[in-house]
Amino acid sequence: MTAHVAPQPITDHPFQGDPVFDAHVGGKLAVAATAAVDSREELSKAYTPGVARVCEAIHADPELTQVYTWVPNTVAVVTDGTAVLGLGDIGPAAAMPVMEGKAVLFKEFGGVDGVPICLATTDTEEIIETVVRLAPSFGGINLEDISAPRCFEIEDRLKELLDIPVFHDDQHGTAVVALAALENALKLTGRTYAGTRVVISGAGAAGVAVAKILLEAGITDLAVTDRNGIVSEDRDDLTPIKRTLAGLTSGRTVRGGSLEDALAGADVYIGVSGGTVPEEVVATMADDAIIFALANPNPEVHPEVAHRHARVVATGRSDFPNQINNVLAFPGIFRGTFDAHATAITEGMKLAAAHALAGLVGDDLREDLIIPSPFDPRVGPAVAAAVADAARADGVARR
Amino acid sequence: MTAHVAPQPITDHPFQGDPVFDAHVGGKLAVAATAAVDSREELSKAYTPGVARVCEAIHADPELTQVYTWVPNTVAVVTDGTAVLGLGDIGPAAAMPVMEGKAVLFKEFGGVDGVPICLATTDTEEIIETVVRLAPSFGGINLEDISAPRCFEIEDRLKELLDIPVFHDDQHGTAVVALAALENALKLTGRTYAGTRVVISGAGAAGVAVAKILLEAGITDLAVTDRNGIVSEDRDDLTPIKRTLAGLTSGRTVRGGSLEDALAGADVYIGVSGGTVPEEVVATMADDAIIFALANPNPEVHPEVAHRHARVVATGRSDFPNQINNVLAFPGIFRGTFDAHATAITEGMKLAAAHALAGLVGDDLREDLIIPSPFDPRVGPAVAAAVADAARADGVARR
Repeated sequence: MTAHVAPQPITDHPFQGDPVFDAHVGGKLAVAATAAVDSREELSKAYTPGVARVCEAIHADPELTQVYTWVPNTVAVVTDGTAVLGLGDIGPAAAMPVMEGKAVLFKEFGGVDGVPICLATTDTEEIIETVVRLAPSFGGINLEDISAPRCFEIEDRLKELLDIPVFHDDQHGTAVVALAALENALKLTGRTYAGTRVVISGAGAAGVAVAKILLEAGITDLAVTDRNGIVSEDRDDLTPIKRTLAGLTSGRTVRGGSLEDALAGADVYIGVSGGTVPEEVVATMADDAIIFALANPNPEVHPEVAHRHARVVATGRSDFPNQINNVLAFPGIFRGTFDAHATAITEGMKLAAAHALAGLVGDDLREDLIIPSPFDPRVGPAVAAAVADAARADGVARR
Repeated sequence: MTAHVAPQPITDHPFQGDPVFDAHVGGKLAVAATAAVDSREELSKAYTPGVARVCEAIHADPELTQVYTWVPNTVAVVTDGTAVLGLGDIGPAAAMPVMEGKAVLFKEFGGVDGVPICLATTDTEEIIETVVRLAPSFGGINLEDISAPRCFEIEDRLKELLDIPVFHDDQHGTAVVALAALENALKLTGRTYAGTRVVISGAGAAGVAVAKILLEAGITDLAVTDRNGIVSEDRDDLTPIKRTLAGLTSGRTVRGGSLEDALAGADVYIGVSGGTVPEEVVATMADDAIIFALANPNPEVHPEVAHRHARVVATGRSDFPNQINNVLAFPGIFRGTFDAHATAITEGMKLAAAHALAGLVGDDLREDLIIPSPFDPRVGPAVAAAVADAARADGVARR
């Protein structure tokens, strides 16, 4: 039925006529009722007295939550507003338009019901305990725009504490899409994971996750740099997560050096740092180099510059070819996770998502097409199917 | 656009063929995107890079949250699952179907976006701090099915701590509709508030709130009973809220007595207690008595019995005339509160809602029609308009 009464329309606003602001008036989400309450009979099914029997059935068998509630298709999009896009710590209220946008993408590209939760705390323990208390309301938790290094501890602890999937998109969404693009770039340039020298600049949320997934995928020669140079075990200024990373990447021979040292002769550069890499440094990379300059809106190496020295170039921007866009991953990952009623998102599920994404390019593979378009309607279903299969293979699926 | 991929349909379930359970498969809610992301251009408005400017604008002026997000039309429907319908403490998971149902009613009868939040804690302090941390995500808080006496402290403290409306529907929804019905019942029987003797059985969430609103409306002769008899200042077994109530109702001459003592000669009986009042006690009430027996599914006095001794009878059930149903109140109250961008729901707004509801009956007023039907399409708009006006009169409106 149509609601008896609707919100009063907002007829004027401060940025009227600006298409971006016009598109945001009244927000970008609504709740929709999927049960009818147009008659006493319908009302007595969807609400009292009928609903009491559904409550009793779930009380007797909590697993029925998966059948008779919206919970198994919902994800809380949780932020504390500390690392919103490139804007930094703008707080929970100002973060809401991004979280609403994320929920729109969850719905439109994954059929997942996303609920934005912007928290009025930046304390690690408080965020963890709050999400734990909210957990009965949601089928999964998508952490978003929470600054490093707190984001690592929050995600790890929540995964231990909860039996629903927890996913920090700034880490794993980026990592999955970057891996998919790299898989195709390596294929195109005749490389294999094992023989390829990779350098990642940036050891924040995205950098750490990209490094981890590349190691899982089979990259063995990897250096990660932060603003103080290569993250290596001989440094005494490392956070716990960077120390772990240093241990994992210690096979790399260039130790104690700078980004410049690392890039000399490297096959692949992945920038998730902001900042700029000078052209003369880019020029020192190997032949047929691969450059993913993912900082937004200003890539670490401008594509024009990159193309002078590399064979394959990707960015985070929609106005250049090969956009590394998280929307290729997170909607399908949660769709597949929910379809399998999985209790976690495993490393295997992330690798399967990346592989499925890469595979969609197929015979169209060429330098300026290493990753599908976000608007390719095959993306969501392909990622979802691969993720659900991997969930079953990894023993975390309930269906 | 249509989502690229939808949840897999549930084709069989344990209670298949039961119309109530069939109506609950997949839950009763969904999130809907109100912004399009079908093209790169649309995506760059609703999400990056465009959205960043909206975030910055809100960061500079938080009041713009009211214009450019969905927050001002959303209400968190918050429970801890301790007092769900008549089922009691069934926990947060089993409470979800009721909270979803409530959100459906918010939407269909008030155009309000309700988000169910079922908390994995029953600790008063933890509930309060959790809701405070969630508050930037919502335009209002509707507390639901939280057991007394914790519900009183939780509501009072949240009202102090937050600058968004907080409303405990089990208290105030019931109170508003009961007052509306009483206003018409008094009119029909030629009574005024000042001269009428009222007895309320039940000093839980609903009983306390009904007592308070009746006193605000002008009732001066009121007794409230709990299982130990009349709540009066000479008792030493009272909770803080009952002690307050005893002070407020001490004008009543029957002190230290039982429900039977209170009802002898009383004009109005309002039952929100469960239990049963014997017919011989009902028979001692005044001529043209008014009986609201609101316990569900078993009224304290069955309507057949009540009609032998009373002129006006109401219940909480939909299969008898004069149903005292909260859905007559909460959707319109939040609609009006949100339309006025009010920072609180005042006593004046609740009284205005009750008066508007009563007024809708108009010239149709008769013994079996003292309150409109929930399906009367005038209800939501009339309550909303009265509440918004009262918000402006009380100085809590921002528009």
